[in-house]
Amino acid sequence: MHTVEPIRWTDQGVVILDQRRLPGEVVYRTYTDYRDVARSIREMEIRGAPAIGVAAAMGVALGVLHSQAKSVAELRAEFAAICDALGKTRPTAVDLFWAIDRFRRRFDGLAAAAEKNGAGSLDRIRAAIVAEAQQVHEERRAADLQIGRLGAELLPKSGRVMTQCNAGALATGGIGTALGVIRVAVENGAKLSVLVPETRPYLQGARLTAWELHEDGIPLTLITDNMVGHFLKTEKVGAVVVGADRIAANGDTANKIGTYGIAVLAREHGVPFYVAAPVSTIDLAILSGEHIPIEQRSGDEVTSLAGKRIAPDVEAAHPAFDVTPARFIAAIITERGIARAPFADSLRAFAGR
Amino acid sequence: MHTVEPIRWTDQGVVILDQRRLPGEVVYRTYTDYRDVARSIREMEIRGAPAIGVAAAMGVALGVLHSQAKSVAELRAEFAAICDALGKTRPTAVDLFWAIDRFRRRFDGLAAAAEKNGAGSLDRIRAAIVAEAQQVHEERRAADLQIGRLGAELLPKSGRVMTQCNAGALATGGIGTALGVIRVAVENGAKLSVLVPETRPYLQGARLTAWELHEDGIPLTLITDNMVGHFLKTEKVGAVVVGADRIAANGDTANKIGTYGIAVLAREHGVPFYVAAPVSTIDLAILSGEHIPIEQRSGDEVTSLAGKRIAPDVEAAHPAFDVTPARFIAAIITERGIARAPFADSLRAFAGR
Repeated sequence: MHTVEPIRWTDQGVVILDQRRLPGEVVYRTYTDYRDVARSIREMEIRGAPAIGVAAAMGVALGVLHSQAKSVAELRAEFAAICDALGKTRPTAVDLFWAIDRFRRRFDGLAAAAEKNGAGSLDRIRAAIVAEAQQVHEERRAADLQIGRLGAELLPKSGRVMTQCNAGALATGGIGTALGVIRVAVENGAKLSVLVPETRPYLQGARLTAWELHEDGIPLTLITDNMVGHFLKTEKVGAVVVGADRIAANGDTANKIGTYGIAVLAREHGVPFYVAAPVSTIDLAILSGEHIPIEQRSGDEVTSLAGKRIAPDVEAAHPAFDVTPARFIAAIITERGIARAPFADSLRAFAGR
Repeated sequence: MHTVEPIRWTDQGVVILDQRRLPGEVVYRTYTDYRDVARSIREMEIRGAPAIGVAAAMGVALGVLHSQAKSVAELRAEFAAICDALGKTRPTAVDLFWAIDRFRRRFDGLAAAAEKNGAGSLDRIRAAIVAEAQQVHEERRAADLQIGRLGAELLPKSGRVMTQCNAGALATGGIGTALGVIRVAVENGAKLSVLVPETRPYLQGARLTAWELHEDGIPLTLITDNMVGHFLKTEKVGAVVVGADRIAANGDTANKIGTYGIAVLAREHGVPFYVAAPVSTIDLAILSGEHIPIEQRSGDEVTSLAGKRIAPDVEAAHPAFDVTPARFIAAIITERGIARAPFADSLRAFAGR
């Protein structure tokens, strides 16, 4: 399965596809400064919880690789600043913090060993951190494939399915989570057509998911977000499958704004609602959804579209995510297995190290 | 209460505000040919079920006024063509057909009398039809005021309410139906703030409702359509009030796409969902919602926004309306009274002539 790559580690630096320009333009940018990667995450050149995790990993690796530190102590101080800058980019996607925590632990181990070994050890730390970032990306790809294989079994063999936002290759760096499930199902012979809500205000559905599916030759129908109820009511939809930005210990799931409304409507119409996400998205430290921090973005993103003002100068709200309570979720598909209600035990087992 | 006028009968012709240009530009167009009024309705320069009824009435009056017919028989043939052209503009809003039926009956009466009376009678028909169109507009204004007075009692005295699309002055020619209810409540001292979903694809919420409320100084927060669930879940919303394009005999209500999803979410959160509409919107000939014809507009209106392409070249659906089953509706507010479930008896009484 060949899919677009939203991010790649190269000898020239970290190459990131600017997703804000899609589908009109395909623009790749090469960054060698971790601060540019942080900005790239904040400004949503790259988005999608798993891809943000990969970007954070590569950002840390860039920072360490290009550090001018002369000692492990100096590098440790710089490393802390790098992690701090990357950690402040976006608050909801837990994969970001998962990646940074992973590098903190890795760095501590490497630094402790280096302090014993002396000369040449800074280069060994740099090489190990760069390898770790590539490993994170590789694990994302493998997780997507496994999520796709497990989830494909849950989809109907033909007919309509629905997704939301973009939980595709662009969001993960692999084949996607929700779109990975759909891709594997189609590859296995399912005759599916995908209902794609456009996902205002950023239009990730219209710009990214429609583009990915179209490139793959998977049939789709683009709809506005307020058509979801009408289509669930008037057509047979076999399943809804979405990604996740953070999953609380009890299964409550934060995902792109609009997901909650779709989940309520899916239940109203007896359509199973699935969440597909890697275990790095599970946050056992958060017991339930009301404690997940919800990013509030600028209202300008609602009153404007692609730089064009579409509303008078009024107050506009822009919560970027909402929380779907676990009771609306039929199953959470991870690379380690499928969790079903009550989710707590399975999620704890899957997310354990 | 001073509100914007979307349509007006003048000595120069029918003046229509081009709502597609709002809020950026306020452009009035003057039409003397009924075919231009038909185009204006079809292309949504004027929209909103009650305002479409007024436009159809004025279109008929223009056609009769400027007819070159030399006899009642000639005028009758032209009249039929006029009604036919106006009747083919948009299929869902029943006020259109209500207005045309009313003029057919009126014309038949006038024509029968004229055939007895002879000379000068064509001018009398013309004058009577023009007066009838102005009467339709006057009745709309009066109906809005009465709907506003009755409905205002149902709203909370303070806090959030939600609407959908634009059921305001722009949609009716009066103070609006749903927005009329909100306007009267505010005039009576209620401290309300309105959650306004933008209402893709045409953005009637962002462009028209936000503009009307802003002009009136009524506080509002603009949201994208997929934020409805999040706000109903995380804030206290006292009521949802929307307009209607056609109400079946059992209370099932066709309204702008997205209304059904809001109704389901409102019920999930125990928020009363009200429909405000003149009795001309009630179609006793349609027993239930599944028989209401739903206008399918071009998918281009989904893949583009304000002339800018926002999606790749994929299939897009654009049902312009959806149907909310009566069981989701707490009350239907008309100028003749408030109907509550089961709606059939009240609606039959209200809509009777």
